[in-house]
Amino acid sequence: MTTASYTVRKWVKPEDLNQHGTLFGGSLLRWIDEEAAICAIYQLGNDRMVTKFLSEINFVSSSVRGDLIEMNFRVVAFGRTSVTLKCHVRNVFTDDEVLTISTIVLVGLGDNGLPVEHGFIEAAEGNERIPRRASRRL
Amino acid sequence: MTTASYTVRKWVKPEDLNQHGTLFGGSLLRWIDEEAAICAIYQLGNDRMVTKFLSEINFVSSSVRGDLIEMNFRVVAFGRTSVTLKCHVRNVFTDDEVLTISTIVLVGLGDNGLPVEHGFIEAAEGNERIPRRASRRL
Amino acid sequence: MTTASYTVRKWVKPEDLNQHGTLFGGSLLRWIDEEAAICAIYQLGNDRMVTKFLSEINFVSSSVRGDLIEMNFRVVAFGRTSVTLKCHVRNVFTDDEVLTISTIVLVGLGDNGLPVEHGFIEAAEGNERIPRRASRRL
Amino acid sequence: MTTASYTVRKWVKPEDLNQHGTLFGGSLLRWIDEEAAICAIYQLGNDRMVTKFLSEINFVSSSVRGDLIEMNFRVVAFGRTSVTLKCHVRNVFTDDEVLTISTIVLVGLGDNGLPVEHGFIEAAEGNERIPRRASRRL
Amino acid sequence: MTTASYTVRKWVKPEDLNQHGTLFGGSLLRWIDEEAAICAIYQLGNDRMVTKFLSEINFVSSSVRGDLIEMNFRVVAFGRTSVTLKCHVRNVFTDDEVLTISTIVLVGLGDNGLPVEHGFIEAAEGNERIPRRASRRL
Amino acid sequence: MTTASYTVRKWVKPEDLNQHGTLFGGSLLRWIDEEAAICAIYQLGNDRMVTKFLSEINFVSSSVRGDLIEMNFRVVAFGRTSVTLKCHVRNVFTDDEVLTISTIVLVGLGDNGLPVEHGFIEAAEGNERIPRRASRRL
Repeated sequence: MTTASYTVRKWVKPEDLNQHGTLFGGSLLRWIDEEAAICAIYQLGNDRMVTKFLSEINFVSSSVRGDLIEMNFRVVAFGRTSVTLKCHVRNVFTDDEVLTISTIVLVGLGDNGLPVEHGFIEAAEGNERIPRRASRRL
Repeated sequence: MTTASYTVRKWVKPEDLNQHGTLFGGSLLRWIDEEAAICAIYQLGNDRMVTKFLSEINFVSSSVRGDLIEMNFRVVAFGRTSVTLKCHVRNVFTDDEVLTISTIVLVGLGDNGLPVEHGFIEAAEGNERIPRRASRRL
Repeated sequence: MTTASYTVRKWVKPEDLNQHGTLFGGSLLRWIDEEAAICAIYQLGNDRMVTKFLSEINFVSSSVRGDLIEMNFRVVAFGRTSVTLKCHVRNVFTDDEVLTISTIVLVGLGDNGLPVEHGFIEAAEGNERIPRRASRRL
Repeated sequence: MTTASYTVRKWVKPEDLNQHGTLFGGSLLRWIDEEAAICAIYQLGNDRMVTKFLSEINFVSSSVRGDLIEMNFRVVAFGRTSVTLKCHVRNVFTDDEVLTISTIVLVGLGDNGLPVEHGFIEAAEGNERIPRRASRRL
Repeated sequence: MTTASYTVRKWVKPEDLNQHGTLFGGSLLRWIDEEAAICAIYQLGNDRMVTKFLSEINFVSSSVRGDLIEMNFRVVAFGRTSVTLKCHVRNVFTDDEVLTISTIVLVGLGDNGLPVEHGFIEAAEGNERIPRRASRRL
Repeated sequence: MTTASYTVRKWVKPEDLNQHGTLFGGSLLRWIDEEAAICAIYQLGNDRMVTKFLSEINFVSSSVRGDLIEMNFRVVAFGRTSVTLKCHVRNVFTDDEVLTISTIVLVGLGDNGLPVEHGFIEAAEGNERIPRRASRRL
């Protein structure tokens, strides 16, 4: 299977800090969950994505205000109604690993709110599976 | 070992929703991480808490705007510098389980940013380990 | 009348501070209003809650980043369409009272947006009045 | 005493709503507290403002997404270290009163965190009491 | 043409700062866009406002936590479906200009999402064009 | 000069909407400003970035909840203390252009808060200019 890879950066701002001035773990998890969903939309061509499973998470370094965080997502497998991603997060300034989540499973839902079969077995490389909507030019 | 238990509720508001109108998983993870830290402050008597480990997470039901979410945390073990919690989340209105995290490990840091030994082997039941700060009456 | 009591904690983070580094009063009022509504849902078994009245508020101590705030709500009376709560807020680390609101009146609305009679005269102790919604298992 | 008057508008957005789609009371209280502090800075010439007292609050109408809220603040008195404001909030589209707070007392603090005497007995009409800071041109 | 003028103040809080402790430009642009829309509602009597054009923006001074920012909007012209504002932002404490946007064009939309002709050629001075909605007294 | 290119996606959530349910322009400007700063950190190897100039902005299409927005930044020039970017934003689902900003100038500051000369004349392709900080492993 081809491996699609998607990298996104976050810059640690005051609103992302916990009470002792380091990056709040919950903020990081929130970023990961949102970016994983975006990544999955490109893979399953479905914008009704829900996170179904996260494997264990080991926080191995801390970050502070002004640090730059790089989150990389790779497609590792397709299920019948799901896609499985691997997420690796590192601190660009310290070159520390921040955490790795080896398995994130996202499921695409249909209009009835139930999982839908997608039929894909290989990763998309670009926008080829993106759902189309009508233009909204002003 | 005695088992301390702490329950907190969240009410799902528009700002907590994802793009198709259900509770955004990242918001839920953010709540859990914050409440786990609060719970750990009572146990370790230290307000410099960081999350060190989360075991795998299975999202088993979804929630919508206006749902009431009940997060329960129980102390399950103490390490040399850490406390281990178990978190169970349910939807009060549907009585569905939302997710369970069997192991959340939090570590208390010292002023130098390194983990400190706490010496506790049993759960605190109330405020007895809470650090004291000087009064700030207006 | 039995007296139900509900305690919730907040941890003061950077986003809750005013421009000189103490807890912003408006953030605290926002927390109180939200938690009072949650408390009232358990009492009136209605999730369309609006705040109708707050008695006067005296801010008697200030809080800083990293402080732990404990908000306690107690049911003090039932009106025809309302429930009356008393709120006491203290700073766990300094043991200072932060503020007390002796009367918070919340009203439960019906589908038409108008207050509905609830018929309760005693406080609920648990989930017995909670409205039920259909399961949403994934 | 002259009466200074200050009006500010807020536009109700999705993030300001409660779970049944009307303006969350806590959001409104947060806005009021912030704008009252701004108003008091102009009056006491001190940017370390804390809210000391709010008189009782009666919520007399509700607002929905897209409504325009007009908050008017008037200076009603000066204490030794404080200024007292009156706040009147109305919904511009419905012309309903939303709430009135007849007494909001704010205190100006010194560098030591204690209230400072200000010596004012009349309301400022403009920027004449504003503290000055050095230019920060880029 | 008469020139209506509208001034609003913002107080720089921790959540508005960038990673090196000065006012984040994106926060300032967000404030301007929101207040311009409020201003335009009064002028076009339409609450479905969208920003269509911003002329170039020169950031000439920086602001820090606790600074007071004054944004002034003036009506400069009316188009067939639009209103054009000029925005001048200054730092009240340093008396520095922060930025000026000489042309902000906002368009009022109809229920079909398309621009609507408004017929105005002079600036409103007060609430005379505000759309009316039914009362929502509790 | 080589041209570095950086693409980032945003998923329109309820908290990003204005009062009539389309993407709030101010939210979009906030995203652009933040991502431009991240892009500039890689180019100037300096994490004290401020936005100095934005050329005019034409909003040519609207976006709704659930749309996917793709922001592309390209390096177009280096000044003595600055880098100039071009930003192109499109809606992935409708394939509409959202807006283009042909010139965004960001300046890198030194510890004294003044612009510093960087000496670069070509775009960085990767992390080669990133400032290094000490490891913060837990």
